[in-house]
Amino acid sequence: MRAEIISIGTEILLGEIVDTNAAHIASALPEFGIDLMYVTQVGDNPARFEEVVARAWGRSDYIFMTGGLGPTEDDLTRETVGKTLGEELYLDEEQERIVRSFFAGRGAANMPERNLKQAMLIPSARAIPNPRGTAPGWWVERDGKVIAVMPGPPSEMTRMWEHEVAPELERRADSILVSRTLKTTGIGEGTVDEMLSPLLKGTNPSIGIYARADGVHARIAAKAPTREEAWHLIHPVEEEARAILGPSIWGVDDQSMASAVGQMLEAQGLTIALMESATGGSVANAFTDYEGASNYFKGSLVTYTAEAKISEGVPAELIAMHGMISRETSEAMAKAVRERLGSDLAIGITGIAGGEEVEGQPPGTMHIVLWDGQEAEYSHSRYYQGREAAKRRAVLQAMTVLRRYLMARAQGAVH
Amino acid sequence: MRAEIISIGTEILLGEIVDTNAAHIASALPEFGIDLMYVTQVGDNPARFEEVVARAWGRSDYIFMTGGLGPTEDDLTRETVGKTLGEELYLDEEQERIVRSFFAGRGAANMPERNLKQAMLIPSARAIPNPRGTAPGWWVERDGKVIAVMPGPPSEMTRMWEHEVAPELERRADSILVSRTLKTTGIGEGTVDEMLSPLLKGTNPSIGIYARADGVHARIAAKAPTREEAWHLIHPVEEEARAILGPSIWGVDDQSMASAVGQMLEAQGLTIALMESATGGSVANAFTDYEGASNYFKGSLVTYTAEAKISEGVPAELIAMHGMISRETSEAMAKAVRERLGSDLAIGITGIAGGEEVEGQPPGTMHIVLWDGQEAEYSHSRYYQGREAAKRRAVLQAMTVLRRYLMARAQGAVH
Repeated sequence: MRAEIISIGTEILLGEIVDTNAAHIASALPEFGIDLMYVTQVGDNPARFEEVVARAWGRSDYIFMTGGLGPTEDDLTRETVGKTLGEELYLDEEQERIVRSFFAGRGAANMPERNLKQAMLIPSARAIPNPRGTAPGWWVERDGKVIAVMPGPPSEMTRMWEHEVAPELERRADSILVSRTLKTTGIGEGTVDEMLSPLLKGTNPSIGIYARADGVHARIAAKAPTREEAWHLIHPVEEEARAILGPSIWGVDDQSMASAVGQMLEAQGLTIALMESATGGSVANAFTDYEGASNYFKGSLVTYTAEAKISEGVPAELIAMHGMISRETSEAMAKAVRERLGSDLAIGITGIAGGEEVEGQPPGTMHIVLWDGQEAEYSHSRYYQGREAAKRRAVLQAMTVLRRYLMARAQGAVH
Repeated sequence: MRAEIISIGTEILLGEIVDTNAAHIASALPEFGIDLMYVTQVGDNPARFEEVVARAWGRSDYIFMTGGLGPTEDDLTRETVGKTLGEELYLDEEQERIVRSFFAGRGAANMPERNLKQAMLIPSARAIPNPRGTAPGWWVERDGKVIAVMPGPPSEMTRMWEHEVAPELERRADSILVSRTLKTTGIGEGTVDEMLSPLLKGTNPSIGIYARADGVHARIAAKAPTREEAWHLIHPVEEEARAILGPSIWGVDDQSMASAVGQMLEAQGLTIALMESATGGSVANAFTDYEGASNYFKGSLVTYTAEAKISEGVPAELIAMHGMISRETSEAMAKAVRERLGSDLAIGITGIAGGEEVEGQPPGTMHIVLWDGQEAEYSHSRYYQGREAAKRRAVLQAMTVLRRYLMARAQGAVH
């Protein structure tokens, strides 16, 4: 099955919005055995829009369209699809009732008459419900081809995709492709490839190895008539891969390092506190992006100046002796915050997020110390591709140090 | 001038990466009077790729391509452009020298021979330097048309765009469109529109009014033969708009609220400290995304639990009496951190970033108090569209409260 995506909107062509809808659809299509051939972004110009839709109708089995479903004259998607298929638009009573009740529910006295446009259909189309907005989608089916039309706003589009369009594609699919991604850290791409080579021979499941910012990912993908059967193919291979990669695996699928480490802390019944300098609260921010963080995260003292560090318990003499950006200061920060916030574990971070040398150390330098009350783990790194990237990388580094400690602890290697 | 963008890469069609390059190019083209008609994303399939390039060559004056310049067999951009134009690829000696020296500079003993591919040109192409990678771009000019080919990795692509391609487009442009965006807060879209109505009549400069998350933006855009002349058209209108909107304007162009507020703090010689709970370090993170933040930002005590708040100086009785998430606790936090870190101003924030009610208050509730040692400013807000969005919104709200205070202070309304 060959598919294409058409994203409609002059805002996209002006670069005012990034078309995330296309990537959302694209990433899901392989699951249903649908091959995406083209993505086209086009503006509100009728002639060009028609040309793009006509070409798609000629060459693709599935056409996914987003945008152009609003109530204004510039919103041309319904008209253009109708014209391409040679079908007349008509006002659907049921849809009219739904659109009117949406406005009534919002307390609007009168619905602008132009919104009636959103209740129009063509004979080959059925409406796709849109609980997040006034514009229903269209599911058009004719001549063995499908056009699925969805609204442009990503919150409406993704909801319609997950609840309506994707389930319909799954019902129609001959086979389903599912995948499990194992995320590793501490080993290189070549090593993972070598370690998994006994498993790489099969084609179903297949295994792909990818180097990413947070480590090397191994993606096991299997195809079968049903989702359950595909998972049955994946499970034994996943077990083998897990046995081979062992503790290098830190997470699966969409999981982030911060959430994986948070789960480990919670499972081990440990709490953590931070004293951050160069990372400026970004490690705390990463932990607190997850529900339930308060079960293990006590807090972070973001001490951006020497005085702030001193007032939170770092000895002034120590800073004077070793410098602000040093292993020693980071360690003193970890010790001070563990004391102050009464956590089991503590991390101190000093470094340089900015683009200039400080105290003779290059941009992107980070000193990270983990302190558990008895022993200190130290990590030193350097990465500079701009300020925000330096901060992001330091977050990952701090999480990696913490994870390594928690792994060792779970294995009894730490007191 | 009609343009289109072609983004090459199977990863894009698999939804593994979002095509930010296209948006980057798209947003810059209006400046040079170039109208973008289409964006097409296509994979590494030779037939489809050729078809897309041939169609573009037939219908557009400018074609911007990104991706497919790597050293592997799947990287087909050079071959495809050569084929479309009916020109043979040849190995360019100068480019070969550059590619080899790139490898030598990285300490690689031998360059893989397949990398020689990256030193190939066609007669109509000249190489565009790429200091961030091995693949030069191509600037192809023939039959009054231009194809600009750039690498796919965004860091290489954006560098090549800013330093090479955009300046060339500027040299060739008949007219330049420049714009100044004035960002306001505290007034609605309709009000801004009404206030600026005396200025809205002109078409050059034109003014567009846009509602955004951080307030209403007024964008003044002017077209002229040169950049300087366009700015001459904008300046008087900008002055008038500034006089009308006055202190509602908080920033211009790409500026963020955090950087604008940071500049105000620095200008007024004031320092700030925070005690954050629900925002989990994200306000600190926003301040520290800018160079020089240490001139005004002392730190943030991210106290995620009641005990952490208490150990940082919030009275336990006060929390017991008013609850963790309350105006009173936020105020006590602001007072405590101002004391602890010795700042001029302090902000305390409590709230609910998660999706569930706490202490009878709905998700997204935020209590924000600014304390200057004598008076407290209080702001209460509620916004929930998921955890990360709630945090982001609270950052904006805290910055807005702080900005309002600093404005009043600059006008002498605060002691």
